[in-house]
This record gives sequence, structure tokens and C-alpha cells, in this order.
Amino acid sequence: MSKSEFSQSLLANSARPQTAADKIPIIARGAVSDRAKEVLNQVERFVEEECIPADVLFHSQLGEGERRWATYPPVIDELKAKAKKLGLWNLFLPKNHFKEGAGFSNLEYGLMAEYMGKSRVASEACNCAAPDTGNMEVLAKYGTDAQKKQWLVPLLNGDIRSAFLMTEPDVASSDATNITMIMEKQGNDYILNGSKWWSSGAGDPRCAVYIVMGKTDPSNRDTYRQQSVLLVPAATKGITIERCLSVYGYDDAPHGHAQISFKDVRVPASSMVLGEGRGFEIIQGRLGPGRIHHAMRSIGAAEKALEWMIARVNDPRKKTFGKQLSEHGVMLEWIAKSRLEIDAARLIVLNAAVKIDEKDAKNALKEIAEAKVLVPQMALAVIDRAVQSYGGAGVCQDTPLANMWAQIRTLRIADGPDEVHLQQMGKNENKRAREVREKLERQREAGDRLVKQSGVKPVGKSML
Amino acid sequence: MSKSEFSQSLLANSARPQTAADKIPIIARGAVSDRAKEVLNQVERFVEEECIPADVLFHSQLGEGERRWATYPPVIDELKAKAKKLGLWNLFLPKNHFKEGAGFSNLEYGLMAEYMGKSRVASEACNCAAPDTGNMEVLAKYGTDAQKKQWLVPLLNGDIRSAFLMTEPDVASSDATNITMIMEKQGNDYILNGSKWWSSGAGDPRCAVYIVMGKTDPSNRDTYRQQSVLLVPAATKGITIERCLSVYGYDDAPHGHAQISFKDVRVPASSMVLGEGRGFEIIQGRLGPGRIHHAMRSIGAAEKALEWMIARVNDPRKKTFGKQLSEHGVMLEWIAKSRLEIDAARLIVLNAAVKIDEKDAKNALKEIAEAKVLVPQMALAVIDRAVQSYGGAGVCQDTPLANMWAQIRTLRIADGPDEVHLQQMGKNENKRAREVREKLERQREAGDRLVKQSGVKPVGKSML
Amino acid sequence: MSKSEFSQSLLANSARPQTAADKIPIIARGAVSDRAKEVLNQVERFVEEECIPADVLFHSQLGEGERRWATYPPVIDELKAKAKKLGLWNLFLPKNHFKEGAGFSNLEYGLMAEYMGKSRVASEACNCAAPDTGNMEVLAKYGTDAQKKQWLVPLLNGDIRSAFLMTEPDVASSDATNITMIMEKQGNDYILNGSKWWSSGAGDPRCAVYIVMGKTDPSNRDTYRQQSVLLVPAATKGITIERCLSVYGYDDAPHGHAQISFKDVRVPASSMVLGEGRGFEIIQGRLGPGRIHHAMRSIGAAEKALEWMIARVNDPRKKTFGKQLSEHGVMLEWIAKSRLEIDAARLIVLNAAVKIDEKDAKNALKEIAEAKVLVPQMALAVIDRAVQSYGGAGVCQDTPLANMWAQIRTLRIADGPDEVHLQQMGKNENKRAREVREKLERQREAGDRLVKQSGVKPVGKSML
Amino acid sequence: MSKSEFSQSLLANSARPQTAADKIPIIARGAVSDRAKEVLNQVERFVEEECIPADVLFHSQLGEGERRWATYPPVIDELKAKAKKLGLWNLFLPKNHFKEGAGFSNLEYGLMAEYMGKSRVASEACNCAAPDTGNMEVLAKYGTDAQKKQWLVPLLNGDIRSAFLMTEPDVASSDATNITMIMEKQGNDYILNGSKWWSSGAGDPRCAVYIVMGKTDPSNRDTYRQQSVLLVPAATKGITIERCLSVYGYDDAPHGHAQISFKDVRVPASSMVLGEGRGFEIIQGRLGPGRIHHAMRSIGAAEKALEWMIARVNDPRKKTFGKQLSEHGVMLEWIAKSRLEIDAARLIVLNAAVKIDEKDAKNALKEIAEAKVLVPQMALAVIDRAVQSYGGAGVCQDTPLANMWAQIRTLRIADGPDEVHLQQMGKNENKRAREVREKLERQREAGDRLVKQSGVKPVGKSML
Repeated sequence: MSKSEFSQSLLANSARPQTAADKIPIIARGAVSDRAKEVLNQVERFVEEECIPADVLFHSQLGEGERRWATYPPVIDELKAKAKKLGLWNLFLPKNHFKEGAGFSNLEYGLMAEYMGKSRVASEACNCAAPDTGNMEVLAKYGTDAQKKQWLVPLLNGDIRSAFLMTEPDVASSDATNITMIMEKQGNDYILNGSKWWSSGAGDPRCAVYIVMGKTDPSNRDTYRQQSVLLVPAATKGITIERCLSVYGYDDAPHGHAQISFKDVRVPASSMVLGEGRGFEIIQGRLGPGRIHHAMRSIGAAEKALEWMIARVNDPRKKTFGKQLSEHGVMLEWIAKSRLEIDAARLIVLNAAVKIDEKDAKNALKEIAEAKVLVPQMALAVIDRAVQSYGGAGVCQDTPLANMWAQIRTLRIADGPDEVHLQQMGKNENKRAREVREKLERQREAGDRLVKQSGVKPVGKSML
Repeated sequence: MSKSEFSQSLLANSARPQTAADKIPIIARGAVSDRAKEVLNQVERFVEEECIPADVLFHSQLGEGERRWATYPPVIDELKAKAKKLGLWNLFLPKNHFKEGAGFSNLEYGLMAEYMGKSRVASEACNCAAPDTGNMEVLAKYGTDAQKKQWLVPLLNGDIRSAFLMTEPDVASSDATNITMIMEKQGNDYILNGSKWWSSGAGDPRCAVYIVMGKTDPSNRDTYRQQSVLLVPAATKGITIERCLSVYGYDDAPHGHAQISFKDVRVPASSMVLGEGRGFEIIQGRLGPGRIHHAMRSIGAAEKALEWMIARVNDPRKKTFGKQLSEHGVMLEWIAKSRLEIDAARLIVLNAAVKIDEKDAKNALKEIAEAKVLVPQMALAVIDRAVQSYGGAGVCQDTPLANMWAQIRTLRIADGPDEVHLQQMGKNENKRAREVREKLERQREAGDRLVKQSGVKPVGKSML
Repeated sequence: MSKSEFSQSLLANSARPQTAADKIPIIARGAVSDRAKEVLNQVERFVEEECIPADVLFHSQLGEGERRWATYPPVIDELKAKAKKLGLWNLFLPKNHFKEGAGFSNLEYGLMAEYMGKSRVASEACNCAAPDTGNMEVLAKYGTDAQKKQWLVPLLNGDIRSAFLMTEPDVASSDATNITMIMEKQGNDYILNGSKWWSSGAGDPRCAVYIVMGKTDPSNRDTYRQQSVLLVPAATKGITIERCLSVYGYDDAPHGHAQISFKDVRVPASSMVLGEGRGFEIIQGRLGPGRIHHAMRSIGAAEKALEWMIARVNDPRKKTFGKQLSEHGVMLEWIAKSRLEIDAARLIVLNAAVKIDEKDAKNALKEIAEAKVLVPQMALAVIDRAVQSYGGAGVCQDTPLANMWAQIRTLRIADGPDEVHLQQMGKNENKRAREVREKLERQREAGDRLVKQSGVKPVGKSML
Repeated sequence: MSKSEFSQSLLANSARPQTAADKIPIIARGAVSDRAKEVLNQVERFVEEECIPADVLFHSQLGEGERRWATYPPVIDELKAKAKKLGLWNLFLPKNHFKEGAGFSNLEYGLMAEYMGKSRVASEACNCAAPDTGNMEVLAKYGTDAQKKQWLVPLLNGDIRSAFLMTEPDVASSDATNITMIMEKQGNDYILNGSKWWSSGAGDPRCAVYIVMGKTDPSNRDTYRQQSVLLVPAATKGITIERCLSVYGYDDAPHGHAQISFKDVRVPASSMVLGEGRGFEIIQGRLGPGRIHHAMRSIGAAEKALEWMIARVNDPRKKTFGKQLSEHGVMLEWIAKSRLEIDAARLIVLNAAVKIDEKDAKNALKEIAEAKVLVPQMALAVIDRAVQSYGGAGVCQDTPLANMWAQIRTLRIADGPDEVHLQQMGKNENKRAREVREKLERQREAGDRLVKQSGVKPVGKSML
């Protein structure tokens, strides 16, 4: 490739910095409305100009030690007010399924989520933070009017927060049939007993409601009909937050990842979502779009890591052996590979989002699984390169890199480890076996026939 | 993920086998015309039902030893006649730049090229084989009427074949300024002296014309204006095919990869394309779409390898240790990863194709480079897994795998090795440095300001 | 690290080029006798000065086409005579088990085999080529006096060659119990029926004897007692060499990898090795040292590839973009990684060799498996980097690289694919499970006890 | 490989659990004295039975919050007393250079260090913890009698601790010539001004002395003679510990990684080590053995991670989809690869240790660099697999895995990032270029001569 060509194309590009809308991969551009492009640009500006600077304030206001769990940094409410005013609120609820949201498709929101992934506070500022997003979807989709009034309305307003309680400490929860939390019907109540962990967000003082997965019918022979979902107020008697788990060395206060015990916790039967035995169905529906959100935020984190890496290797103070780091061929290769890997992963996620938009998440199981597996591995690789380029600064609190890495590392585990998804993807792909074998055999037979007819001596014999 | 969900979605899918058009990634579907979808399905059927069986006949007709260079297997002409009749002819010339082709976009043709990549003979059958495609583009774009009449018309008809002579044995040709072939003006003629190799297709008895890159002005201070391109009849006096090069152990007869010497080869000045000093410009324009073609054919090869692998691991005769290979978790993981990697790479190529369609290849330098680097590495990994799953059969003539691997291995080298492209991509991305550093510094300053205003103690200090 | 330090150490090194003995990893040096060091240096000189130059002559004498199978290049006999005279003959038979060899340990011969791996002809020149080596071991270990006289003596003299026939085309032979060749006792004879492939060396006109694995007792309930090994003269009636298999396009003439059919092939019962039902035992014993030989030759091939790569990146004719390739950081990193990976792999093989020397191959199953899996993957990576650094020259006949790659690629398949070995290694390592779990539980209990005694609040709880 | 064979060899092994001495790779065994084997076994027992249980107590006694920096867990002194009594004290000082130590070679101590690497407290318990070990080496090697009396004696007794201050926050310290700390001579004193970070161990209340690298002669044209090393009491006026840095969220209290500012810090000239301008020489000597220690401890950490993984995949409570995790082929492959990678890396380190033992660290620059680069990458991969096998438990405080990962991640950065070492290794290896090119050219010429003499047509032409 010629130098001059590249310079020309760069001149063209650098005339005006590209907006977020300009950077939408061209293959996806046609499916993004003009309104979405405008809002996307607004989200970019809000994140880059308001939220990322506020990240530092967030951590500084948070302070150190136990008191971090007692309250939450005031900057959050300021940003929420700003976002609401700008209309950057509840952007995540897809237009084809929910009337409560801002009216964007999964593709459009996915593009916005990428930018939110560059900041610690942005998702929450726009009321688009996990696990509230998935919980709001569940309530909007399956909740009764009373349930919606009690929990969905304040969640949509950003007045309370919520947690989703599914994983358990003593079993392999990647297989949901292993769950042991018991929900026993007693009169008009359910009595809950059991233990949950990795209940993210339960550490926050605003967390008011738990969406809890348990078993109402543990002996049902259909192992996918044993589970139910109940809405449990966080303040209910019998609930104890035993401790908070760390992720590598981060405890993510005040959000937190709680281990919670339930001892004879009583909730009215009206807390049941959708009906007994529908729990598995509910979590299935819940996971799809959430995986896209996580994936796009991780893409944003990877883009941020790449920016930090570019900043580092062009830092005039950081010459080694007489050279700017950006003159070292290995660094340029890392940058190039990061660019390429991010771009490929983004297309995988956007394609999955469009597939969900076509109908629903069930329609996009394969595409979602691809995004679920590919993106965190990619983002971890990109961030790790950036860490390495920073040396000591990369692993400590002076860059956002180590913390981002730890966050994203959990995505290879949450909602089922990569290996479980790969096995399922493999089995699914392998269902083509008969069709494929039959086709290849037909081709072999046709080939053999052709050779026989022609009278020439066959070369090779198919090992099919 | 639940078993029942997957079964359902599979039932839905398996009702009727998906056509090629059904399998277009949803994110690209909107940009593909109905006519293109129909032709795509035709191409799929032609390849799977006619060409792949004919591959065996091709190799058998070819036979062994020296005589393979003297002629070419008759099945080729039969298939060309069929393809022409079906309208599957010259599909590659993009509609927004050429009137001579079938009127498809790069995206649309790319989808078709994937299927052609599954067969040894398909591209040639549809008159879409390299290097003729790139050569026809050059002639259509830059040729004079006389040049077109002499060479483009018979090429478009499939009556002759051509070669592109650029790489040289004694220099590092990934840097085009290194070229040493001399084209000296003498009166109304040019006299060519020098040596070329990797002149693919020059082995074929039908190869009638060479498109030759050389230097008319080797002392020009602008090193990108020294080169010119001449059209040289293969039969010209002074031209000697010294030998043919092998790729791993394959010589690819009768196509071949020739080393050719030029000793005082004389052609009329009217053979000059576009004008003296325009050589670099011509090859730049030539490379973009060709890289997309190669990439999409490689995607097809990878899909074929995956099919063969699926066939193998479900072969009832190939149980080991009491199990079908498809029951081994490692094999399922290979299948899943292959599926995922192919899908990601395809999106990268299709996005590049759409970007070319938007304007031209210059517009898509970044996207084309991404496809150029990513796809061969992906395809090699997928094919290698398939080889491994076949054991001895995988490395020999009884599967198409080893041969496909060797072909695609050259793509990491041809048109510049991966490493050169990665360096260029890295430099290009690194041109964002000032913009990025300025943004991050603005963010840091804004953050510091916020913390100062709030009066809290700062946590961490940015290592920016 | 300081420049001056490195320069000093280099000056020290460069005073006199290091011999092969100097380059023995220091950790292995104590176990190598002075005589072995001398012979090792002789082998190095013989390979570098006689054999590698003769490789070119070998290929040139071999020529092209079918006639390559009819005879073998005369240079072979010249080199054999030289090697015999130098005492570089039958170096492979380990001193603690065989009196017929040159009296070296597996470690010592392994070091020599590394150098032989750098040349096409060296192993054969020293009568140390597979599959004769393994076959001679079998005969020396298990043969009757008559069998030794008939086959071992001429093999040790280098007068004939041999093949080992185990793998079959229609079954998954990585599981030896799948073998289908039938050896039926009829009076004083065995009648053989079946089909073998990948019978390497059977193409050579000098190949006089096949060591054949088959089933004498296919219904034996102990699936490891069904097999027997017979010595079958290549010229026996009923044997047909159906064809030769290629390896990535190379047919390895005149050695060859044959597919051979047996139709009512009759041999006297005295051809039985060791006794009926002992076949599995024989091949087990045969494989261990052979894997070390292959591994060390592959190390040699990797060293050769690294030399070629160093030669390329310092080739003054091959500057790109104004720089010697060796000035590109990525190339230096490839060289460094190659150095490191070769060194690590070599230590794994040498450690396995010492473990065999301690007692026998059974004693070293784990160590041999590690070498079997690690070395080919390493060598393929190193060679592939060298190929890439050469561009077009790397994949064709102008370097030894592509051919070496293809040869070594088969080692990931031969004697069981990597994946089978990894599963077995994993199962073996996993047999520690009870011991490990008990230890970790004891530690956890002891830790809990300590915390309890101390009266402090426990931090974390072990997820053991 | 046969099941029965493996079972047999396992039976043999499992009769009695292997001791640490039994597990020494056989290739290294001959160089380990009987006394060292005995002590090695003692170290193993001390670590497994005393230290690992005490790790939990250590963390529990440490507690939470700021007070962790004020003191250190009492269990440390108890263990130190035990270790001293057992003679497991100052094992690290190699016998051929120091009379103060326990009289072991680097190889022998390396084997012991592996076991210490399995516990948080073991190295300190045996007075073998970094950075004291390197500091004691410096003092023993270069210190005056007065310096030894003041600092070495209490360090050898385990009465005080120390820190090594070299890295600086504002420069790329992987290039030691970038250091900016000024040490100005004023009369009989030096005045220090500057800033250091990653001063590990400076957080500990027992840390009494800093070994400080700075520049006494910043304008010296020999950039490797500008540096000097001074011994600075931690309590000196003008020294401020600004803050402690975290490593992926871990602050490693009370040890800590401090950022320390020096403002007009005055020390007597007698604090100078070895003499002005000898700083570079001192750190060079200091780094070699320390890298071996780090590497072997990392090997121990990897072994521990593998044990934890084996424990997990055989945990009867953790079945997924009806299977024990150890029955999943992918898990077995992870275990096998981990086993293999650990074994290869260990051999690389042990070989480097023997090379140091032969003479000194300068003698082993290449081997030490190989260990420095290979081991952390290997250990991170092994630990990450273990994390993944544990799911949520793997990333949090309930396993030692995440913390070990974070610790070892810093080793890819400390003492120069991998990339700097790889470049240096590549340059070093590349110094063979002339020798290699000359040899290959001689071989080519000899080959050409042979072909010419034989009169046959040459096949291929060397692209050398």
C-alpha cells in the first residue's frame, strides 16, 4: 500500500473529527434511523465530556473503607438529572417489544451502549445499567399491573435499584437445573430458603428488590419446569447479606457482588412472576439482549483501552532506547491487531442485534452465543496489550485498564462459562451432520460417475 | 441455554434446507437485491451439484507428469458452457464501475465468490478466476479501445487467459519500489529486460497475454512514479518460462506459478496502459476488489473444511475408544470455534465490500486490509483443524483439505505479507494519536477540576 | 540488560564457533560421555559439510516423474560408505538394551539425531532412518535367531530397508484395537488379508521386509491380546502396492507412503514375532524411543529453519521500506520466540531420553508423551515463521522450509493424533485427584483450625 | 497408548506419594546433593503442612482497612521461628559466591523456591522473600564491613526488612538510563531528590532500609556510568511515602508497593555502595538470581493452580449436565496442557540455574532471559484455566487463584517488560547472522559443485 494513498485518505478523514454516527460500520448504517444517529452522537458527547471526567470524581467521592457501602457518590444523581434532561434515559428497551423505552432497536441501542462502556458511571446515569435493565425487561414483559406499579415504575424513574439472584455458591450454576433455593408454598405465601451469591448490585443502599430464581417444584420430571421467579423486597425478614465478593482485588462498592442467605423468607403469592414453573422461560428471555449490552459495553472498553495504548506509545516522556514506543514495530502490530479484532467482534454483536430486532432473542440464539463468547476474549486481549504497554501504571489505579480487565474477565464466566457455550454451539452446528454427510456423499457419487463415464483413471479416492 | 429451545429453533430451521440466500448474514441482507439472491442460489447449486463433482474429474483428466502442462482438462469447457447458459458469467465486474459485467455489487458478488471458493473449477467455469478478473478490471478501466478489443473481449468471452507479472525473485517485492524489470523506450517500442516469478496462470497453454509491471523511469525521485504497466503477448520473442514453482508440494498444473525471464523483449508503445509512470496507480486500483474475491473464496474453503470435519466426526466407521468423534468435547469445541471464526471473518469481508460499493476501493483501504489479514489466518486455522480430525487422510490426496491449506497459505504472502499490512494498519490507526491524546488530556483536566471543586481527596492519579 | 554486557558475552562466545558438544544444554551435559561428545561433533560436521550439500544432489539425481520410484539416488550409497568409515553407523541402538549398536544412551543419540534432522539424507546415511530403526529394535529385542539372521543382519548392514505396516485406511487407527487385518493360522502358515496405508518406506526398491500388525485372535475378550506381528517379505505373492499417498503435495519418492493390499498372503508360522497375541506389547515397546528420535530430528529441523530465517532477515538484497528485515522489531521477536521455544522443547525431549535411559520407555510414558505433543507444534510454528519471512520463496522448492513443514505436520497425526495423547495425559494427571483433594482438604481444615484458635474473624472461605 | 500400561505405571507410582525430591526432573537430579534433597523435602512439608494453612490465618489476622498497614500478622514470627529451628533459613544465598547462606546451589535453592511459591507466607518464613533476598546479595557482595554490620546482619537474622528503589513514575524505567533521581554530593553527604514508585515492601512497618538507585553523574557520556546506589534508612528526613499502588485491586498490605518522594534527603557518603558510577553494574548483578527465584516461585504457583483445578473438576458437588467436570474432554486437555507447559518451563529455569551455578549470572544471560519471559506467560495461562474452571469462585477471595494471577501478571513488566527482553534476545540471537549466512552459503556452493560434478540437472535453486 502506498504512503501517499494513505495520507490522502487520512486528510479526508481528519478534516473534521468523526462522530459516533460516522463510525457506525457501513454494513449496519442503513438500519440505523436518523433519530438514533443523533442520539448516538449525543450519547458519545455525554460520555466523553461528562461521564468520563466524572469517573474520577465518582471514585474520589466513594473514598475508602467500609463507609463506601453506606451511601453512593453524589455525582451519580447529578449525571442522572443531566441525562434525563437530554432525553438519554431508558434507551435500552427495544421498540418492537416495549412501549416504556426510548424507542430504539437493539442495533441502535447497542451502538449507544458501546460508548457507555467507556465510563464507570455512564450506564447508570442513563438508567441503562445492569442488572436493572434485564430486571426492567422481565417486569415489563411478564409483570402484573401491581408488580409493575410497585417495582417497574420506580426502576424506570431511576428511584430504586434491583438485583437478580440466580447463581448459588454450592452448585455448578451454569446448569440451571442444579439450583437448590427452595420456594415452598404455604397458604398464600411462599417461604424461601437457600443461599445465593454473585448477586450484583445488592450492595447498593438503593437496591430495593431482588428478582429471585428458585424451585417451587423440585421433583418435577421436566427439569426445566421446576423453577420459578419471585419478586422479593430487599428488606424482607430472614434475608442476610453475608459478605461481598471481590473480583480480583476489586469489591465494586457500593454496587457489590453479594452472598445472601435466605432463612424462612416469606413473600405473598402475588410476588410470583408469570406463574409457577415458568422460571426457566423467564431467564431465557432475560439473557439475550443483556448479553448484547454486555458485549457492546465491552467493545467500548476495548476501544478505550486502545485509545489509552495509543496515548502511551506516543507519550513524549516515554521513550525507550531512544525511540518513541510507537516507532517499535511490535507496538504497531499490537495496535493493528487490536483495531482488527475490535472491528470483527463489533460486527458479530451488531449482526446479533439485528437478528434480535428481526423477531426476538430466541430467533438469534446462535448469533448471541457467538457474541457472548467472542467479545470478552477479544476485549481481554486488547486491554492486556494496553496494560503491558503501560508497565506498572497499567496494573494499578492510575489507569482504568486493570479494573476494566477484571470486570470483563467475569463475562467469560457469568451466564455460563465460555466452555459450556462452545459445547452447545458445537452441538448445534453438529446437527447439520446428516444433511452435510448426505450432500458430500451425493457429490462423491456424482464425481465417481463422471470419472467412470469419462473413462480416465481416477486420481485419489475420497476419504469421506 | 436450554435443550428444548435449541431443538425448537432447529426444527424451524430444518424444515427445509437453507439456501445460500437464507444464509446471508442478516446485517447484510438489506443491501442484496432480489436478483442477486436468485443468482446466488443458482451459483450455490451450480457449485455444489456441478462443480464439486467435476473437481474429481478435473484432477483425473489432468493425470500425472509433464503432460499436465500441455493441455487442460476438457471438463472445464463443458462447465463454462453450462455457466454461460445459466447466466453465471463475469459476475465479478461491479455494477457501479463497469458496464461489461453482470451488474452486481461487490457485496453481491462477494457472496457468490464464497461458493466458488468451495470448488477447484467453479471460478474458472464462471469466468471469475484470478488473475483474469483483476486483469479484466485493469483493461476495462484503463485500456484503450484497441487494447480492449485485442485482450478484454476474448478474456470476457473466456477464450484466452492471462497472467499478471509483478513479483520478482531477487528483491523484496512487498515494497513495490524495489522492482527491477527495465522497460526502455526505443523509438516506438519498449524493450523489456528482467525476471519475474510467481506469475500465476502463465503455465496454462491458453494464457495469451501478460500484464507486466516494470520501470520506465527508474531514476524518478518520486519512487511511486517510476513504474509502468505494459501488455505483452505471451508468445513474444525473448520470453522464457524458466520453470514452475511449487506451493508446498503442489505445482497447480496446468495453471502454474511461473518464473519467467525477459531478454530484450520488444513490444509496441501502444501496449502501454494509461501512460508512463502510472504503474503504481494501476496496481493500487487492481488490488482492492481482488482481495475481497480471495477473501470470500477462502471463506468458502473454510466452510467446506468445516463440512468435511463434521462429516468425519460423525462417520460411523471412525469411532475411537468406543465413541463417535463428535461426542468428544474437544471436537465440538473445534466445530464451535470454526463456526464463530468463519462468521466473524465473513462479516469483516462483507463490510469491506459494502464500503467499496459506497464509492471505490480507495475509500475502503482500512476495511480491505482487515479482510486481507484476518481471513487467511482464520481459514488456515479452520482447515488445519479439519486436517487433524482426518488424521492421515487429511494430509493426502483423499481429501481436498491439504491442497486448500497450501493454496490459502500463499495468501498470507501474496500482495504483501501480513506483517507489512499490519505495520501499515498500525501506522494508520496511530495517526489518531494527537486527537486521542488531546481528548484524554481534556478528560483528565475536566476530571481534576471536578474533584477540586468537590473538595474530596483524589483517588489515583492519571498516568496519561 | 546492558549493551556492553551482551557484547562482552558475545565476544567470549564468538572467539571460536561453538561445536555441537558445546551447545548441549548445560543441565544435560554431565550425562554425556566424552566419547559421545566427540561423535556428536563428528555427526555435526558430517551433516553440515557432507549431507546438507548432498541434499541438493539427492533431489537432482532423483529427478522427476515416475522413474523416481524405480531406483534411488546414488549419492546415498556414497554417504553410507563415508559414514560407516567414520563410525557414524547404527548410532541409535541404546547401549543399555542392545549390544548391536554403537553404544550410546538415548540421551546421547538424541543429541546426534538433532543434527541428522537438518538433512534429508543424513539419517539414512548413518543407518539411523525411520522406520528401519524401530524395526531393527523390534528384531533385536524380540526376534528369533533365524529372524535376526534373515532380517536384522542385512538391516544393520544397510543392505536392505523395511517398512512397518500398522495403520489402516478404513478405521480410526489411533485406537489400535480397531485394526482389521486378519492373520489366520492354516497349518504351519498364516494367511493375511486386509489393507494397510501410510506404510512409509514401502515405495523404496530396497524395501525387503514388512513388519505387519494384524489380528490372530479378533474375538479375544482382552482387546489388547488380539494382535500379533508377522515378518512378511515384501515380494510375497498377494501383496499389491495400490498407490502412494502424498503429504501436502509431496510424495516423498522413492521412500513413499504406500497403500498396500493383502490378499491371501501366506507366510510360515516362523515369521511370528514373540508369539500370538503379543502384538500390542511389541508396538508399545517400539514407539517410545522412536518418538524421541522424531522429536530430536524435528528440533534439528526447527534449528535449520531458524538459521534460514536469520539468513533471510540479514540478506542485504531484501530490504523493505529502507530497512534490513532484521531491523524490524517483529522479526526480532520471531527470532527470540523461536530460540526460546526450541530450547524449551529440546529440554523436554532430553529429559524424556534420560528417563528412558534410567530404565526403559515404559518408565518414561509421561515424558515421552510430552515430547510427542510439544515438539511438532513448536517446530511447525518456528518453520512457519521462517516460511513467512521468505515470502514466495518460503512455500516453494527454493528453500527446504515448506517440505520440512509438511513432514513434521504428519507427526501431529502419526502414532496417534495430539488430541488422543492429550486426553490420555489429562486422564493420567487426573489420577492424582484423590491425593490432591485430600491434601487440599487437610490444608483447609488446618487453616480453619488455626483461625479458630486465634479468635480472629476469617477472611474468605475456601471454595475447595 | 494402552490403558493397562498406564494403570501399571500408576500403580507403581501410587504405592507411596512422591516426595519433592522424587519429583525433581530426572535430567537435573544428578546435580542435586543428598543434603539438598533432604532439605527440599523438609521445605515441601513445611510449606504444605505449616505455611499454606497459615496463609488463611495471615489474611484473617491482617483484617481490613487502613490498620493493615500499621503492623503485620503475628503468624509470621511464629513461622519464622519454626523455619529457623528447622534450618530452613537463608536458603537462597548460593554456595559458590556467599558464605553467609545455607550452602545450596542456585539449582538446589530453585527447587525449594518452587514450593515456597505455593504459599503467601512461606518465603518470608524462611527469610527468602523478595526484595530482601536481592538486597542481601547486594550487601554481601558489594557492602563494606560497616554496611554489612548495619544492614546485612539484621536482614540475615530476619530482624528488619528492606526495599529496592529503582523504578520511577515519570519515565520509561525499562531503560535504566532514563532514571532521574538526583544524588548530589555535598561535602561528605549525598543529597537525594526525586521520586520512586513500585517500591515493593516499603509499606511494611519493619522496612528499615532502602537501596536506592539514582544518578550521581547525569552528564557522563557513558550512559551506563551515571548511576550509583546508596543505602538510605527508611526513617530519613525528607522521605515521604505518598501512597501505595494496587495490583488489579490488591494492595498487598502490609508489604505494599509504595510511591515515595525524596526531598533533600541527606545521607553520609559512607552509604555509597561499591563507588560512584557503579550503579548499573550492581543492578545487573542483582537481577539474575532474583529472576530465577521469581520464576521458580511462579512454577510453584502454577502447580498449585493445577492442583486446585484438579480438585475442582473432581468435586462431586460440581457436576454439570450430568457429568463430573473431569469427564469433559476439554477439561482433560487443559490439565494435560498445563502439565506439559509447567514441565517445559521448569526445565528452562533449572537449566538457567545450572548455568549460573557453573560460573555466575553473566554467564547465563540468555538462559535467564528465557526463564524471565517464558515462565510468567505460562503460569498466567495455567492459572487462568484454573480460574475459568472455578467460575465465580475463581475470580474472588474464595480461591487463591485471582490473587496469584495478579501477582504474576506484574512479572511480565517488572525488571523490563517481555517485549524489551524479546527484542534483546532477538538481537543477541541475530548476532549469529554472519556465521550462519557464511555456513549456508558454503553449503549452497558445495551443493552446486556436487550437482555440477554429477552432471544431472539441478532441481530448485536456493533462495539463500
